[in-house]
Amino acid sequence: MSLIRSWVASANSADTDFPLNNLPYGVFDDGQGARMGVAIGEQILDVSKVDHGQDPALFAEPAWNAVMAAGPAVWAALRAQLIGLLSDEAHRAAVEPHLVPMEGARLLMPFRVSEYTDFYASRHHATNVGTMFRGAENALPPNWLSIPIGYNGRASSVVVSGTDVIRPWGQVKAPDADLPRFAPSARFDLELEMGAIIGKPSSGMVSVAEADEMIFGYVLLNDWSARDIQAWEYQPLGPFQSKATATTISPWIVTRAALEPFRAATPERERPLLPYLSEPGPMLYDIALEVGLQPEGKPETVIARTNYSQMYYSAAQQLTHHTTSGCSMRVGDLLGSGTISGPEKDARGSLLELSWGGKEPITLAGGESRSFLEDGDRLTLRGAAIGDGYRVGFGECTGVLRPAVGLPDWAKA
Amino acid sequence: MSLIRSWVASANSADTDFPLNNLPYGVFDDGQGARMGVAIGEQILDVSKVDHGQDPALFAEPAWNAVMAAGPAVWAALRAQLIGLLSDEAHRAAVEPHLVPMEGARLLMPFRVSEYTDFYASRHHATNVGTMFRGAENALPPNWLSIPIGYNGRASSVVVSGTDVIRPWGQVKAPDADLPRFAPSARFDLELEMGAIIGKPSSGMVSVAEADEMIFGYVLLNDWSARDIQAWEYQPLGPFQSKATATTISPWIVTRAALEPFRAATPERERPLLPYLSEPGPMLYDIALEVGLQPEGKPETVIARTNYSQMYYSAAQQLTHHTTSGCSMRVGDLLGSGTISGPEKDARGSLLELSWGGKEPITLAGGESRSFLEDGDRLTLRGAAIGDGYRVGFGECTGVLRPAVGLPDWAKA
Repeated sequence: MSLIRSWVASANSADTDFPLNNLPYGVFDDGQGARMGVAIGEQILDVSKVDHGQDPALFAEPAWNAVMAAGPAVWAALRAQLIGLLSDEAHRAAVEPHLVPMEGARLLMPFRVSEYTDFYASRHHATNVGTMFRGAENALPPNWLSIPIGYNGRASSVVVSGTDVIRPWGQVKAPDADLPRFAPSARFDLELEMGAIIGKPSSGMVSVAEADEMIFGYVLLNDWSARDIQAWEYQPLGPFQSKATATTISPWIVTRAALEPFRAATPERERPLLPYLSEPGPMLYDIALEVGLQPEGKPETVIARTNYSQMYYSAAQQLTHHTTSGCSMRVGDLLGSGTISGPEKDARGSLLELSWGGKEPITLAGGESRSFLEDGDRLTLRGAAIGDGYRVGFGECTGVLRPAVGLPDWAKA
Repeated sequence: MSLIRSWVASANSADTDFPLNNLPYGVFDDGQGARMGVAIGEQILDVSKVDHGQDPALFAEPAWNAVMAAGPAVWAALRAQLIGLLSDEAHRAAVEPHLVPMEGARLLMPFRVSEYTDFYASRHHATNVGTMFRGAENALPPNWLSIPIGYNGRASSVVVSGTDVIRPWGQVKAPDADLPRFAPSARFDLELEMGAIIGKPSSGMVSVAEADEMIFGYVLLNDWSARDIQAWEYQPLGPFQSKATATTISPWIVTRAALEPFRAATPERERPLLPYLSEPGPMLYDIALEVGLQPEGKPETVIARTNYSQMYYSAAQQLTHHTTSGCSMRVGDLLGSGTISGPEKDARGSLLELSWGGKEPITLAGGESRSFLEDGDRLTLRGAAIGDGYRVGFGECTGVLRPAVGLPDWAKA
């Protein structure tokens, strides 16, 4: 597939994340209030203001949930209409007044998160973490090659790119200590992930093909993680407060339709999957990903480069597994892919892996080193599927880590 | 405290769950549509129809979320007004026409669940389960005496009493098998719990005293659990599909105000808690609980009797811990206490414990025995705080286990 040309000149650049092929959905505020928008080059189209043939009620509140709930036929019709409006010069006079420069607009949460589930689906990540915690021979848990392992996260923790993240307090216990203490996390980390957004509800088991059809689109997702809190709390019921500080998503929902030309297959299976997880075709996407770390007042260093196609399980497989128990899925559910690590040392999607649990600190461009995040660090995820002369990008997923709040009097000894 | 007499005669019986002292909040449908109601004896007061001095907009949709969001001052004023209306004979003529017989009305979900968190806070339960899985010496995980251990559950799984529960499919692996298979759960279980409903939101850490003020009320909660699915899936990230089939709650929210006279203290601490978890006073409640199991067409057997005051951690402590990481809490969040087991053998709140992992099946009144639940079994939780000549009860929390659905073709080998 090649570039679909738009009369919005900035959308035809090979460098923009937002050519007409992309057309991702977000919510913006340019000082005139929060509205639903579509990114096109360096502009945002105020989508409620143009004639796209869909029910205006779907655009009444600044969130894409109503459009998602309207179903796949509406998703397809809206996208086709918007491509027509932005490609055909004949519509320019009517549409152009409703373009808002992206620079200067504030990007808000694109949808209301119903529930948030996080997975653990990169074999390289699971192997790295398992090797550190249990040794190389027991790196992968026995169930890992059979189950797309997941746990429920906290929807209220999901924030949009640009939101500051405050270093959390929590219970931590030093390996040689008898008792835990209450302290700010000293091993605060990122996790490079993709998020899949459920647009079509289900009740009862769905196949992988049906699951794929339920996915409205994807975002970049940083599942900030307090490793020291996690280590002490996670047995026997899994991570809890270590994952509840914040989960940052990129501001633009890149639709499944836009990613269609970039499908990639999951790898060959070392152990055959149970039939309910079989895939009808390629369910991953070839999306190049990178992580930038910028200490306060210093230049940024790209600390990891990897690709979403490295995953062992696809979002559709994860969603199918999620429904096996009869669990209902709802519009606005968000599924985190799990940390995306590749086989190379610089393709690891967390500092836990990059610094090998803090034993091998990484060196940044400015000469500083990092095992885990320091106050003031800006963390930025970027990602794009690369087409022929164009890219389908996600925009930045960024956040700055701020110092822990002071301990309230009531929490002092 | 003694009985507050009402002109609704059935509310003055020592046997009713719903004297005027209780006044729990629910949603009902008597064939005229779903509305918000208050239980009083054998009647339901259609609360939107009487003059209680509160903004009618709070009663516009059939769910108590808007009242909760209005805050503790409104909670107190509404309760005081309703007690006045139902105790003072002078209001009888105006109010009585809006009473609906509870018998024949369908009770619906009393509120929209925002997010659902489940805890693991009964020492007897944790010790029983730990002994079965890890031996008596390692029964309690090392963090258990320091952390109110919890994990995020699935809000979409929460259903109201009376909803059928369908036996789930899932991945299970026999101890002597190399590979898992996909099968209906053969070790499907109940968990007797209390649910605390958050009525007041928070952002940032809250003290135990503040947490207590955020709790609007309590329900009975049955956290249905597929033990065989759980055993295979729960390492390393905790229970997931094993807990996502259904979570049944009782239909009436018993307010914190109604439970005030029944406060009970958490036990002495074997290991001192960190200061942030210290309690300003008694935070549990003396609530007698029981579990009834009725095979299809057979009499019911009460298989367990225990008390909420057996817990090691209170809901307020759990909520405080939940906020330590900066996790925002929202109106409608539901916190499951964790299975409530007492020290005696017949005070255990799950079949896993009662049948000691299936090794000691229990015998029912009709002569049948049970290790885990069979299709057609009706499971009923009941609970009440016992006052002087009255009881503050929760109504039944009941559900019937139906057979697993047939395996869809796409899931067959």
